[in-house]
Formats: sequence, C-alpha cells, structure tokens
Amino acid sequence: MLPQGFYFSVASAGFKKEAKKDCAMLLSEQIATCAGVFTQNIFKAAPVVYCMQELAKSSLVQGILVNSGNANACTGDIGKKECADSIEYMRENFGLNTPILPCSTGVIGQQFQEGIWKKVAPILATNRNKNTLEEVSEAIMTTDAFPKIAYRQLQTKEGEIRFAAVAKGAGMISPNMATMLCFVLCDAKVSAKWWQEALTKAVTSSFNAITVDGDTSTNDTVLALANGASKIEITSSELEKEMEKVLTDICQELAYKIVQDAEGGTKVLRFSVKGAKTEKDAKKMAYAVGNSPLVKTALFGADANWGRIVAAIGRSGVSFQAEDLKLYFEDILVFENAIPVYKDTMEEMLSAIMAKNEVCIRVELSDGSAEAEILAADLGYEYVRINADYRT
Amino acid sequence: MLPQGFYFSVASAGFKKEAKKDCAMLLSEQIATCAGVFTQNIFKAAPVVYCMQELAKSSLVQGILVNSGNANACTGDIGKKECADSIEYMRENFGLNTPILPCSTGVIGQQFQEGIWKKVAPILATNRNKNTLEEVSEAIMTTDAFPKIAYRQLQTKEGEIRFAAVAKGAGMISPNMATMLCFVLCDAKVSAKWWQEALTKAVTSSFNAITVDGDTSTNDTVLALANGASKIEITSSELEKEMEKVLTDICQELAYKIVQDAEGGTKVLRFSVKGAKTEKDAKKMAYAVGNSPLVKTALFGADANWGRIVAAIGRSGVSFQAEDLKLYFEDILVFENAIPVYKDTMEEMLSAIMAKNEVCIRVELSDGSAEAEILAADLGYEYVRINADYRT
Repeated sequence: MLPQGFYFSVASAGFKKEAKKDCAMLLSEQIATCAGVFTQNIFKAAPVVYCMQELAKSSLVQGILVNSGNANACTGDIGKKECADSIEYMRENFGLNTPILPCSTGVIGQQFQEGIWKKVAPILATNRNKNTLEEVSEAIMTTDAFPKIAYRQLQTKEGEIRFAAVAKGAGMISPNMATMLCFVLCDAKVSAKWWQEALTKAVTSSFNAITVDGDTSTNDTVLALANGASKIEITSSELEKEMEKVLTDICQELAYKIVQDAEGGTKVLRFSVKGAKTEKDAKKMAYAVGNSPLVKTALFGADANWGRIVAAIGRSGVSFQAEDLKLYFEDILVFENAIPVYKDTMEEMLSAIMAKNEVCIRVELSDGSAEAEILAADLGYEYVRINADYRT
Repeated sequence: MLPQGFYFSVASAGFKKEAKKDCAMLLSEQIATCAGVFTQNIFKAAPVVYCMQELAKSSLVQGILVNSGNANACTGDIGKKECADSIEYMRENFGLNTPILPCSTGVIGQQFQEGIWKKVAPILATNRNKNTLEEVSEAIMTTDAFPKIAYRQLQTKEGEIRFAAVAKGAGMISPNMATMLCFVLCDAKVSAKWWQEALTKAVTSSFNAITVDGDTSTNDTVLALANGASKIEITSSELEKEMEKVLTDICQELAYKIVQDAEGGTKVLRFSVKGAKTEKDAKKMAYAVGNSPLVKTALFGADANWGRIVAAIGRSGVSFQAEDLKLYFEDILVFENAIPVYKDTMEEMLSAIMAKNEVCIRVELSDGSAEAEILAADLGYEYVRINADYRT
C-alpha cells in the first residue's frame, strides 16, 4: 500500500523515440524531508549537479521530476539551463514555489529537443493525481525489461509507517551505482540528518553492492522523501533502527531486481567474501569476481568454472593468505590450501547449483573478520545485442 | 628468417581433448641467456613458480618446454611435482643436464593425466629438430583463432641479428598480461641484466598495454632467449637501444595479434591518453575505457557512442580537469569543455571510423605530459559463445 500524501503524474513527451511514457512527477502534499545519494562519476549530469546543490541548501523538497530517454549528461551550460527551466515550468503549471528535484536517464550527450519541457508541463499538471506509482515505474524505464517497484510497512505503537519505492536500471550498474534511479517514498516524519545517514547506509549494502558490467553512469541518483503524512515521528533510536532495516530492505529488493534485469542477464550471482582484513578488501575482491567477464560468461553458460573465480580473486589486488582460502559453491567446498578439492564426481551437484536462478558462491579467508556480499549479473548474448546498438 | 642455433620439436600428447599438437620443446644448441616476465596473479601456476625460481638462480637456460590444454594452475604440490618431473623426463630423453623452463596454458585446476609427460618425452626427443617454429605456434594455441608468429632482423656492422617470436593468447588478457605466453628467440650475445631490463620495458609497452576482457591469468609468461649464435655481442649502448627497439617492436606485433584474436573480437581499439599527470594515471584511464563492456559492445556494433567513453573516463578514479578534456575520434573532436562538439552531421564520418578494423580514439588532458596507449578488443557474441562453455 502506498505511503500517505504522495501523488503522481505521468506523460509521454517524446524523450523516447517510441510513443511511450517517458516523464513523471512524484509530489508530496506536504513538503518532505529529502535525502540523496549520487554518482561518483566526475562527469555528473546536469540534474545530478542540480539535486546536489539544492540538497546542500535545504533538505525540504516537494517532489521529483524525472524523464527517461535523455540523460541530460555532458550537455554543458545548455543542459544546466534546460534542467533549471524544466523545474520552473513545473512550478508554474503545478502552482508551486517549493523545491522540486530533477532526474534524467537515457542517452548521454544529447540536448533536449527545444521546447519539450514547456510543452509537457501543462500535460503533467493536468494529470496530477491521475497516475499510479506503477505508471511512474514504467515511465522511468530505458533498457529495463520490467518495471521495479517495492512496498514495505512498519508497524509502530503509533500506527503504520509505509514505504514505497521505484527504481530503474539494467546496464552500467557498478561500482557505486550506475545508470540507475531510485525514489523511496515514506510517510514517516524524520530528521534530515538521520534520514540522510540511513539512506547512505541502505545504499551501501544495496545499490552499491551490485554489478552488472562494471560501468558507472553520469546520472545515478537515489532520492528518499519522507513527508510525515503518517504523523509518526521517528524519535527513539529503537525506531530509527527498525526504519533503517526497512529502508535497507526495500533498497535491497530493488537492487536485486536491477541485477535480475541486467541487460540480457539470465541469473544472479550472490558472491560473498568472509574473513577479509577489511571491508574494503572484501568488497574489492568480490567486485573482481563479479565484474570478471570470464566469470560472467561461465555463469551464463552454467559452467562451474571455479578456476576463473580463483584467477579473478588472485588478480583482485587484495593481498591475502592464499593457502587459507576456501571456495564454496553453496556448501560444497571446491578449493582449499591452494589446490582443488573439486572432483569430477562433484560436477553434477555443481552444475545443479549453476543452473539455479540465484547462484551462491562464497570465499572464506583467514585474514580478519570483515566481509562483503555483492550481487552480480551474468553476461550473455542479449547484453551484446542490447549494447551493440542501443544508441541507434 | 629464424635466428641461428634454435631447434624445435612438437607432439600431440593428449593434453587437449582433440588430437591436436599440444606440446613443444624449443631448444638452443648453445646455452642461452634468458629473461622472463610473469603474471602478477597471487595464484601463480606451478610452471610460473618453477620458472621464477630457476631464473632467480641463473639466467642460463637451454630451452623451453610448453604444453597447451592444461594450465597446471591451482594444482598444489602434485602440480609442482609434475612440473619438475616433466623437465626431468625431457632432460633424460634429450640427454641434457642444463635448465629447461616449463610453461603451461589451458584449463585451470586440473591435474595432468598420469604418465602423460613420461609418454611424450621420447616422442619429443625423436622429433628433435624435425619441427618448425610455425608448428610450435600451433602447438601452444588454446582458444586462439590463428597462430601468432613474428620475425625481425637487425643489421649491425658485424652482421645480422635475428629475432623470432611466437605467442598465444586470446581471452583473459589484461591488465598485466594474462593467459598469454610469448617466447622470443634471438641469436645475439647479451648480458643477462640488460636483457632482462630490455624485456621488461618491451612487455610494458606491448603485452602490458592490451586488454581483451580485464582478466589476468595464473600462467602469463614471456620468456626471451638469446643464445649468441650470431656471434654478435651487444656491448655498445647504441646497439642496446636498437635491440630494445626491435624487441619492443616484435612484442608489439604479437600483442596486436592477441587483441585481434580476442575471443570473438572483430576489431582493435587503439586508445591513447595524452597530457595526464602521470603515466599511471594515463594507463588507468585508458584501461577504464578499454575494459568497459559498454565501450566494447559499442565498438562491436560500430556505434560511435562517445558518451560511454566519457562516462568510463569519469569513473576511472583518475582526477583531472574535466573542462579541459578533449576527446577525438581520429582527428575529429567530439567532446570539449565538458560538452559535446558532436553534431548529427558528424555521424557519417564517425561511423566510418568505427567501421574500421582499427579504431583510433584519443583523449587529451591538460594535467601534465604523461601519456599511455593501449589496445583493446571489442566484445561480441563470439566472446560469449566461446566463454560460456570453454571448459565443457
């Protein structure tokens, strides 16, 4: 069920070549507290820069304007002006004078068609309240094969807090997010500082722990709006913890969906590293495996090629006790003391594991107690097909 | 033409599943000075460890024993013993008591079939001198689509110095080499110290400047033997320079062939970075582009998707003056001052560049005078097909 006090408006403006839904407004009735996490790419898209500047000034935000089909990235001053203008058109047409944050996803380096925002603003305003969050989730899709939406409730003594979130993303996901957008809506009343901390934590173990192809985009954005419409204020540290858990959980559900929807992906690798010296080491090693095209293609072919995993670990740049490394496919130990435990007789069991939709592989080290887990997509023909001619 | 004083022996021992040439001896009549460069993977294959230990003791080497089909990697003490035994069998059968260096390439984590080396040793010994370097280049192939061989001559006042080299490698190439082997043979008389320095330099700008898929193997090895059979001694620094140039040149030719033969690769990207703060930065940025699956698939699709290149540069982890970055496709400037110079009217010219067998793209920065150039393969359907079921 939707959190209280949010409404949605969707239109087809022509950002996408096909006549599909390609822009949306997500608005809160009351002004909301907004937290944001953004791409670390040096070339940040105009809307990302806009959002970061706005949130540096104030965390109070009325809503989000989003388009798909054009990323408004690498578009210089024109792109920045278009971005600011688009917000102004919305304010005028919606009769608002409060901050709205822009997000864009799509092709890099193209300017918007002239007048497109001016034209669509009254349409979006007319549609206010007429659309559903499901329609928003469709409007933000680019190469996504399916829309991504998730809901959560949290029961408190004072009543129910609701969360809803939409995300888009398929390729270019990692490290540190990528062409992905996620909007989390919540009707709790929160403090800006804690809400930002909670979102940062949630992103670290969700969108920042997935890899589709190792590319990171210019536009990655996660925004979380809490509008207080439930009238439940998060004051106790106990409730904060519960909220953090739910926030992480909803982000992880959407992160999982993004990996599932990896361009052409057929399965998800859940790869974990335990016993590392530091969490950074653990994540670095996990990413070396998750980003390896050889591992990804073996995953696609359901081939239990553990040698490629070992090779990826060995070149990860992390120093570790090689003799102590253990590699497991689910609970089957295949490599230990720098030699295979693997026997031909295991092949059937390993193949069965590799044939699953979710393949769980883990490495255990003896260097410390840090750990990390990532989700990675496989690499198949469809990835090549989609990406060899996405732009054209 | 072959350098003087080397002879070759090839056999089909059964390391490969099909009845193909799969092992070879490369021997020098006189004992040769050997230099070596090896994988930096933590899991080094048994033959790599053997070579490194031998060369640490002495650089005098009689020859090289190589097999394809089984990498003897991640094979523990058994693998080490097999490696040492294989050399002993060769010494016995060839009647040698001087060092021979082993190299293996193929599947990781499988032990050799029992008795395979003992059985093939007399066959190789019988074939001594009967085979050509071309046959050696075939015997070391695994997923290679074509054999890789190169020749060079250097005219000196005292006569001609000859070089010949064979290499294998297609996937798993980068960074810092990968499942690649290269053997350089030369008939000059060299000092061990300089010869090692010269090889290290040559590898840096050849095999360590290519990327097929970002994976690095457990077995990468480059060995260079100089046996002095030409009776020309390299003593002057002038001749050293000329020799270094030829050595780099022959390595670059083979590195190029490896990228051309990238598993399923259809073209080569020559990507250069100029004006970087340090060479390390330049190489890091170049690799971020060369290893990006999105760039690689665009290359495969001959799509001039410069936005993906900019995005890869931006996430490379190198800090630079973003406004000063210029991106060129050959001599066409497409991006400058953080905005596209690109116009739709350029599309035809850019598409023509992308359609070439060698696509030249460069980035110019204003942060210093360091530069780097790498060769990268594209990523197409064949890469997926080959790697989804290589092991089975």
